[in-house]
Amino acid sequence: MELAGQKQWQRSVTLTDVEAAAARIAPHIGRTPLLESPPLSERLGLRLLVKAEPLQQTGSFKLRGATNFIAGMAASARARGVLAYSSGNHAQGVALAAKRSGIAARIIMPAGAPTIKVERTRALGADVELYEHYYSNRDAYIEQVARETGMVVVHPFDHPDIIAGQGTVGLEIVSASAALGMRIDTVFVPTSGGGLLTGISTAIRATLPHATIVGIEPEGHDDFARSVALGRIVEGSDPDRPTFCDALRSPRPGTLPLSIAIDQGLSFGTAGDAEIAAAMRVLAEDFRVIAEPGGAVGMAAALARAQDLRGRTVVVVVSGGNVDCDAFCKAVGRD
Amino acid sequence: MELAGQKQWQRSVTLTDVEAAAARIAPHIGRTPLLESPPLSERLGLRLLVKAEPLQQTGSFKLRGATNFIAGMAASARARGVLAYSSGNHAQGVALAAKRSGIAARIIMPAGAPTIKVERTRALGADVELYEHYYSNRDAYIEQVARETGMVVVHPFDHPDIIAGQGTVGLEIVSASAALGMRIDTVFVPTSGGGLLTGISTAIRATLPHATIVGIEPEGHDDFARSVALGRIVEGSDPDRPTFCDALRSPRPGTLPLSIAIDQGLSFGTAGDAEIAAAMRVLAEDFRVIAEPGGAVGMAAALARAQDLRGRTVVVVVSGGNVDCDAFCKAVGRD
Repeated sequence: MELAGQKQWQRSVTLTDVEAAAARIAPHIGRTPLLESPPLSERLGLRLLVKAEPLQQTGSFKLRGATNFIAGMAASARARGVLAYSSGNHAQGVALAAKRSGIAARIIMPAGAPTIKVERTRALGADVELYEHYYSNRDAYIEQVARETGMVVVHPFDHPDIIAGQGTVGLEIVSASAALGMRIDTVFVPTSGGGLLTGISTAIRATLPHATIVGIEPEGHDDFARSVALGRIVEGSDPDRPTFCDALRSPRPGTLPLSIAIDQGLSFGTAGDAEIAAAMRVLAEDFRVIAEPGGAVGMAAALARAQDLRGRTVVVVVSGGNVDCDAFCKAVGRD
Repeated sequence: MELAGQKQWQRSVTLTDVEAAAARIAPHIGRTPLLESPPLSERLGLRLLVKAEPLQQTGSFKLRGATNFIAGMAASARARGVLAYSSGNHAQGVALAAKRSGIAARIIMPAGAPTIKVERTRALGADVELYEHYYSNRDAYIEQVARETGMVVVHPFDHPDIIAGQGTVGLEIVSASAALGMRIDTVFVPTSGGGLLTGISTAIRATLPHATIVGIEPEGHDDFARSVALGRIVEGSDPDRPTFCDALRSPRPGTLPLSIAIDQGLSFGTAGDAEIAAAMRVLAEDFRVIAEPGGAVGMAAALARAQDLRGRTVVVVVSGGNVDCDAFCKAVGRD
């Protein structure tokens, strides 16, 4: 499937778009902290900071993009309501953003989504449907529902307003690091469809051009990196295969994120399950933050590369923390 | 033991002291967020916000007071180094503050202190001594070590500079709530020696005089509340009795915190172990924050009183999160 064969966006995303998103969503989101653990940095021999999106309302960065997207909708479109599909983090972001705007939200979630994510999405007033063939037939089904209901689809990553909203994470990293007088060398970002990655890179590269931005995918799910390498969209090999990282199961990159990533020359890497479990443990013990497996892949990669990063200033983006206590404890017991 | 028989402080603590502390320690501490969970507030029918001190460097508020105390020391005193006793949170706060000031720190910890707290304190360069008779003979032993070494004792709560430093938590609550346009009705604060409680109340009551400040102690360890009620210092009945809340084991209130609490007419309550375990679970699942048992007593009390707090705006101070994953998972499995 060639890039040329995909939906072509009339516009890309610029720093100005991200700044506009930041101004638009500021009253409706939390500004998350950039956390430091002096004993951990000491132990690793590098300065490691965590941008903690589990501390965002709804427990992940997804509220940012959803809020920005809905804020940009015309009144006529709002009246029809919004439709989204998600394993849970985008679901909660869309549900809360829609509720605050007083518009209806319908969310299609995979039948096996974590209970905590399904319950929270329902608690935010969304009409949740659990769909059995989510990973194999999702796109066709969404299209059908959109046609039948007239609801506006809020894509989880493949839209300029979504990418610009997620990019506000990058702006906050830039301003917090400036306040600390830091010079960031490397930023690790959990990657699935690429909205968070390319939003952050768009925000950061304009002001910190020397910083390396690295997208991290779970091992065996590196369709984004392979697509960038080949210059065309490559599907994940087995979209129904279960993974430790339920939040990072997009079977393919977004068209717009992919073209931005190629354009900006971003780097990529992967993290394995044992590394991810160890990273969740470090986030809990050294930063007192609960991360879900998919949220911790960036930390997993940073820890695995600590030797090569000695003396550097590294920011790890932790994208989400929607995991119940039992699942969390089971996960951190693995390593 | 009458208040009159205790060490009499020449000065109390004022809002001006807390503001001076804030200016002094700002470059050396993190500003912790005031977190919201819209689904939880919805569920409880009240607006509940969490001031998350586990996200402070060293994992608890204790870095604030220690940094302020050391910043106020004369050069001649600094040359002698500092001495502290602590089950672990004050230990890490003093260790990091001392390290940053380039002065020696010796910390006496109870032989049974959580391993994570002992290791982290050592990682911060402090000379740690594990003392067997910590809960029965601590004061005499500290006095002896201070006499022998000439080191300056950094009391965990009974000093104006410590109280003023901890009070910066209250200033941050005031400014964050103002930014959110909130009117705070009630603030719950974990209480042991009373430094955090009275620092916060001093900071808050000047600007938000209508707010009720409630100190929460673990059930069976309510020596602070009993001392306030009787107007004199009452010892805990059995100082060596183990408790779920290792961080809240001061056998008696501080003299200065007690007189401030009486003067300001603060309220008190307790929380039981099962309530605390449930609160740790809520903090993990709804706020993605790891709290240690002693850090979660305020949340436990707020949840237990949720029915009476309906419609109110409630701030819960979570004081610390120094607990390893295994201990955390064991604790949250209790309820």
